[in-house]
Amino acid sequence: MRERHRAWADDFLRDNTSLIITDAEERKGRWKELFGNDHPIHLEIGTGKGQFITGMAEKNPDVNFIGIELAKSIIVMAGAKLKESGVTNARLLHVDAADLKELFAQNEISAIYLNFSDPWPKKRHAKRRLTFHTFLEQYEHILQPGGEITLKTDNQGLFEYSLVSFSEFGLKLKEVHLDLHSAEVPENVMTEYEEKFSAKGQPIYRCRAEFT
Amino acid sequence: MRERHRAWADDFLRDNTSLIITDAEERKGRWKELFGNDHPIHLEIGTGKGQFITGMAEKNPDVNFIGIELAKSIIVMAGAKLKESGVTNARLLHVDAADLKELFAQNEISAIYLNFSDPWPKKRHAKRRLTFHTFLEQYEHILQPGGEITLKTDNQGLFEYSLVSFSEFGLKLKEVHLDLHSAEVPENVMTEYEEKFSAKGQPIYRCRAEFT
Ligand SMILES: C[S@@+](CC[C@H](N)C(=O)[O-])C[C@H]1O[C@@H](n2cnc3c(N)ncnc32)[C@H](O)[C@@H]1O
Ligand SMILES: C[S@@+](CC[C@H](N)C(=O)[O-])C[C@H]1O[C@@H](n2cnc3c(N)ncnc32)[C@H](O)[C@@H]1O
Repeated sequence: MRERHRAWADDFLRDNTSLIITDAEERKGRWKELFGNDHPIHLEIGTGKGQFITGMAEKNPDVNFIGIELAKSIIVMAGAKLKESGVTNARLLHVDAADLKELFAQNEISAIYLNFSDPWPKKRHAKRRLTFHTFLEQYEHILQPGGEITLKTDNQGLFEYSLVSFSEFGLKLKEVHLDLHSAEVPENVMTEYEEKFSAKGQPIYRCRAEFT
Repeated sequence: MRERHRAWADDFLRDNTSLIITDAEERKGRWKELFGNDHPIHLEIGTGKGQFITGMAEKNPDVNFIGIELAKSIIVMAGAKLKESGVTNARLLHVDAADLKELFAQNEISAIYLNFSDPWPKKRHAKRRLTFHTFLEQYEHILQPGGEITLKTDNQGLFEYSLVSFSEFGLKLKEVHLDLHSAEVPENVMTEYEEKFSAKGQPIYRCRAEFT
C-alpha cells in the first residue's frame, strides 16, 4: 500500500507540473506571469494536505496562493485536493522553506501563513522552528513592506516562543487570539490539524505580525 | 461591620503615614531618600491586599517596592500585611495610577508590575485598561531605559489586548507564559487573585515587555 502510494505520488507529480511547480527557481521575480494577473501572492509554508490553501483560494479569488510542502507523499494529497476544487489561483512547490530567497524576489510576496508548524520543543532544535530568526530574515526579504505573517498553532510552547521571536526581530503584533474558536472570526479557514486538535477541545492560538 | 472597617481604615491611615505615604507628590525625584539607599525602585500598580508586594519585598531585600492602590478599604489591608511582615523596603501610595508622572521623576523607576488589573472588557472602556497607550506613555516616562513591565492576569481578553498594545507602542516582548503554573518559574510570587483563579484551574498568563 505504501509502495503503491509512492508510485501514485510519482505519477501525480509527473502529470501535474502546472499545479505542483518543478521549475520554481527559474520563476523567481516573475511569479505573476504564471498566474497571468497582478493579484497579490500569499505564501503558505508547510501546506500539509491542502485544506487551508484550497479553502483560501476558493474564498479569495483576487489573491494568488502558493503552498510550500517538503514531504512528497503529502504534497500530492494537497495537489489532488486543489485539482478537485478546480481553483486556478493556487500552486504548490515541493521545496524546503529554508530556500525561500532562491525562489522569490525581494517584495514579491504579500503575506505568509504558518499553520501548525512543527513545534520542535527541544531548545537545541529551536533553529528548526519556522519562526526562528533565520527564517524571519527570509520572510522579511521576500515580503513587501507592511507584509504580514499569520501564525496558527495548537502548541503552547511554539506560540509563546514565536510571540517573543517576532517581537525581538522587530515585528509588530497586530492581533493575538488565545482561543480562536471562541471568538467570532468569520474569515478563518480551518486546516487539517486545526480540525483534529479543536475536536479534542484544545484551544487554537493565532497571531498576526507585521514587518515595519 | 462595614462602618467599623471604615473607621479602622481611617485610623490605620492616620497612624501609619510612614508606610502609606500621604505626601507622595513632594517626594517626586527623591524617593531614594525615603528608603535611605540607592537600590532600584519597583512599582506595583493595583496592589490589592498586598500579598505580592509583601512577598517580593521579603524575597528581594536589595530592591525597594512601592505599591499603588486606589481603594482605601483595600490599601489598609496591604498596609497591615506589610507591617506584620516587618519589611523595611516597601511603601504604599493611596493614589490613582493615572497620576504617575506627578509622583515620579523621569527614569526614577526600574520595573513595573501589573497584577490582575481590572480587565474592562467592553471596547468603549479600553482607555481605562492599565495597558492602554496613555498609561504606557506614563510608564515609559518614569521607567529608566530598558525598564520592564511584567503583566500577570487570568483574563484572556486583557492579555490578548495587552500583547498587541505593548507591541504597537514599541515595547519588545521578552517572555510570554500562557500557563505560568505549568512552567517552572521559581521566582513567581502569587497574588491574592492568582491564588483564587489558579485554584479554580484557570491558566495564569504572564509577559514581560521592555521599553527599548
Ligand atoms: C504539523 S504539519 C501541519 C500541516 C498543515 N499546515 C495543517 O495545519 O494541517 C507541518 C507540515 O509542514 C511541513 N514542513 C515542515 N518543515 C518544512 C519546511 N522546512 N519546508 C516545507 N514544509 C515543511 C511538514 O512536511 C508537514 O506537512
Ligand atoms: C482585580 S484587583 C487585583 C488585586 C491584586 N493585584 C491581586 O492580583 O490580587 C485590581 C486592583 O487594582 C486597583 N486599581 C484599579 N485601578 C487603579 C488605578 N487607576 N490606580 C490604582 N489602583 C487601581 C483596584 O482598586 C483593585 O484593588
